[in-house]
Amino acid sequence: MKTLQSFKARTGEPFGAPLLAHTPEQVDSIVEAASTAFASWQASSGTARSSLLRALAEAIESDRDELVSIADNETALGPVRLNGELDRTAFQLRRFADMAERGVAFESVDDPAVAGAPPVGHPAMVLQRVPLGPVAMFSASNFPFAFSVLGGDTASALAAGCSVVIKAHTAHLVLSNRMLGLIQKVLEVKHLPKGLIGMVQGGGSDVGVRLVAHPLIAAGAFTGSTRGGAALQAVANARPRPIPFYGELGSINPVVALPGILQAKGAELATLLAGSINQGCGQFCTSPGVIVLLNDPASDAFVAQLTVALKALQPHAMLTPGIRQAFDNGVAHIAESGVKILLQENGSPEAPRPFLAQTDAINFIVNSELSEEVFGPAALIVRVDSVAETLQVLAAIGGSLTVTLWGAEQESDDARALVRGAMNIAGRVLFAGVPTGVAVCAAQQHGGPWPSSTQPMTTSVGDTAINRFLRPVCVQDAPSWLLARSGQPC
Amino acid sequence: MKTLQSFKARTGEPFGAPLLAHTPEQVDSIVEAASTAFASWQASSGTARSSLLRALAEAIESDRDELVSIADNETALGPVRLNGELDRTAFQLRRFADMAERGVAFESVDDPAVAGAPPVGHPAMVLQRVPLGPVAMFSASNFPFAFSVLGGDTASALAAGCSVVIKAHTAHLVLSNRMLGLIQKVLEVKHLPKGLIGMVQGGGSDVGVRLVAHPLIAAGAFTGSTRGGAALQAVANARPRPIPFYGELGSINPVVALPGILQAKGAELATLLAGSINQGCGQFCTSPGVIVLLNDPASDAFVAQLTVALKALQPHAMLTPGIRQAFDNGVAHIAESGVKILLQENGSPEAPRPFLAQTDAINFIVNSELSEEVFGPAALIVRVDSVAETLQVLAAIGGSLTVTLWGAEQESDDARALVRGAMNIAGRVLFAGVPTGVAVCAAQQHGGPWPSSTQPMTTSVGDTAINRFLRPVCVQDAPSWLLARSGQPC
Repeated sequence: MKTLQSFKARTGEPFGAPLLAHTPEQVDSIVEAASTAFASWQASSGTARSSLLRALAEAIESDRDELVSIADNETALGPVRLNGELDRTAFQLRRFADMAERGVAFESVDDPAVAGAPPVGHPAMVLQRVPLGPVAMFSASNFPFAFSVLGGDTASALAAGCSVVIKAHTAHLVLSNRMLGLIQKVLEVKHLPKGLIGMVQGGGSDVGVRLVAHPLIAAGAFTGSTRGGAALQAVANARPRPIPFYGELGSINPVVALPGILQAKGAELATLLAGSINQGCGQFCTSPGVIVLLNDPASDAFVAQLTVALKALQPHAMLTPGIRQAFDNGVAHIAESGVKILLQENGSPEAPRPFLAQTDAINFIVNSELSEEVFGPAALIVRVDSVAETLQVLAAIGGSLTVTLWGAEQESDDARALVRGAMNIAGRVLFAGVPTGVAVCAAQQHGGPWPSSTQPMTTSVGDTAINRFLRPVCVQDAPSWLLARSGQPC
Repeated sequence: MKTLQSFKARTGEPFGAPLLAHTPEQVDSIVEAASTAFASWQASSGTARSSLLRALAEAIESDRDELVSIADNETALGPVRLNGELDRTAFQLRRFADMAERGVAFESVDDPAVAGAPPVGHPAMVLQRVPLGPVAMFSASNFPFAFSVLGGDTASALAAGCSVVIKAHTAHLVLSNRMLGLIQKVLEVKHLPKGLIGMVQGGGSDVGVRLVAHPLIAAGAFTGSTRGGAALQAVANARPRPIPFYGELGSINPVVALPGILQAKGAELATLLAGSINQGCGQFCTSPGVIVLLNDPASDAFVAQLTVALKALQPHAMLTPGIRQAFDNGVAHIAESGVKILLQENGSPEAPRPFLAQTDAINFIVNSELSEEVFGPAALIVRVDSVAETLQVLAAIGGSLTVTLWGAEQESDDARALVRGAMNIAGRVLFAGVPTGVAVCAAQQHGGPWPSSTQPMTTSVGDTAINRFLRPVCVQDAPSWLLARSGQPC
């Protein structure tokens, strides 16, 4: 049996007792239990789903102090952020509970019979939606609550009528197991099978690969690195019966700032942007990694302001030693790629210092590795000669969760071209503020072209996240008893 | 330069002059033209899109006699079917024209700002939809109009604001080139770039692979064999930037007929089912390939009736010698897999005879190749002892465009279980009639779990087919000039 050990992120000391990794046989039996639980849960009412989701929200809220304390030890993200994240997680659970009650999972399109020959005539058709089956849900390192055990993926999958097998993240194992304990109590009180929300843990990729490859798993949901996500997606694609794999991977989140707005309020924006780069030690999928500036005196001033603002900040410890090391490697790689260093200082073994460099459009476009995400408080300024060159830089990035456009308040040919260029590569385009901070709402789109997502037509945050787990099925000439269920499952 | 030759399906004689296959460089330049055309077409109005689609519908209608005659020579599908298919193709073009006019491609979700801190408070967000880019569209062998040059994939992609590069099917090259001539005239009259709808042709997979691998292609749409579709999907997945690949592949379309309804009207249903198996010489993606019958005297009688009904039918010539040969191979493979042959006769070199065999549930489940589609007028009866065994047979099939359930008019535990089992593996569940004949309407779902589709959450027929080519993009704190466009593109 392999053992696993959690560590304190700030000191590297062991945290909690060693835990056992799941064996392949244990993974299989947890998946089988999820499959059995799915058989009844897919036929559950919206009220039953809502009731479970609300009870889970209450359970984490009532254990808040202990959960935040454990999470703070394991992640170093700090109690303010972690309390906020726990609030968000409970909010997400209740939002999907509301959707389950409103019957979002059971919405259907009624298409009554039309008399006559085809193509005009057709039988009575109703387009319904059915849950996919057991979902393999991979927790993220950087959101121990909101994108982990009871995060948005789990909440939306349960609301859709799917069972869930969670892969705990090794960066917060103690927290994950405490969450599992809360879940199991809630399931017991609700007389629901334990298998409805299972959890597996293991180092390396063994447990994760076993999970995605299991024939009873119907979909994967993942938040993490491009490398890890791409590897699991390849497993999902190589199955005898491939399954949808919803991966939210790396993103570089370009910010395009035009000279006009920098002239008007460059200092304010530099402080705002430095804060966003440094937020959570840059460990956000929406952390701004590339800043595109036209060659203009206002841009020069902004670069100086941003450098000063970043230098004044003190990033906290990173999530794990591996992530800390990867940051140094990533920064070293950028530094060697023909860029001009603006800010590079030695950090501690746990906490890095912010990094800032500058290059021109041609060097950025030629060196495709400069478009790769460096996870942490690093950013690269790309100086361009024109809006046309800006568009080339965006096209070279190709896929990102967000693009931020500062200074497009007035309509013009340039503004329209920049909006088009931004929309072509991103899932969300911001015209004010910073990309960090992803609202949980109806119009959110957290997913863009590769490598930011494996399935850019879907989102992992916001109301439409539930659609990932519901497959459309048309019933033709359905008997009246089935239609009387109004999309409620059999 | 490689040359290509079209043939008469009924005789194997050459049809038309030899044609040149496109070189890799020519494919590239056609894709580049599609990319240039996309830059303006993505910003086109719904009225402009509708006007193009309607003109294309008129163009094929006014060339009907010649088009049907060419198609009949190349496919042997007969003028009645081909005239109907041309009607359907024009109907599809006009239906997507209506949708373009109604602004379906520009629909958005308005999510006004909410004051306060997160998770409740959020900025003003609007969820819009943007066209993906140039689409590589692969024509099908078996639908020379409705799933080919100006078929549903092309119509829905154009309505979404995408440009299209068509891969002509080698089984109807003369038809495809005549269609291209019509398209180019319409584009000229409308002052639209020739590159908006391009076409490539070539034998083997060279041209198709080049197309899907091209960096400027943003999505693939394909109707054809599981083998061909899986190969192209692998190319799409292996790109530096993977793209969505919408493949509609093989499907075995099980029909479950319960003893009660067979007792009541078995003879009528046998005639209906034989007609569906034989329709278009069985060359339909929705052709019923497996018939699941409970062990019961009514089922025995039905098997005898179906055998007689099938024996009386005369399938016409198949589309190509390759498809004809594949049918014989597929039938031989079934015949060797522990089944009882009910009907097997020698056909002509062009036209096969219907094939019918019977086996039990265990043999069917153990031999997974019995779940593979045999393209042509072949069906396999699977006899089962119980509803539970029926569910096991459906689960073994795993993915199908359709499941047909005859005899589920009354609600019961069995009926509910069968509906669930059918919905779990299919995109469309029919309770009357036969699966051949796919209505073009709002509630259609033509796509199910693998291997029937590569993307089971989408459909290639019906109104929601347009969603395959529109990616959601959220605009946050968008300027008023952008919001005033109400989702119309920049």
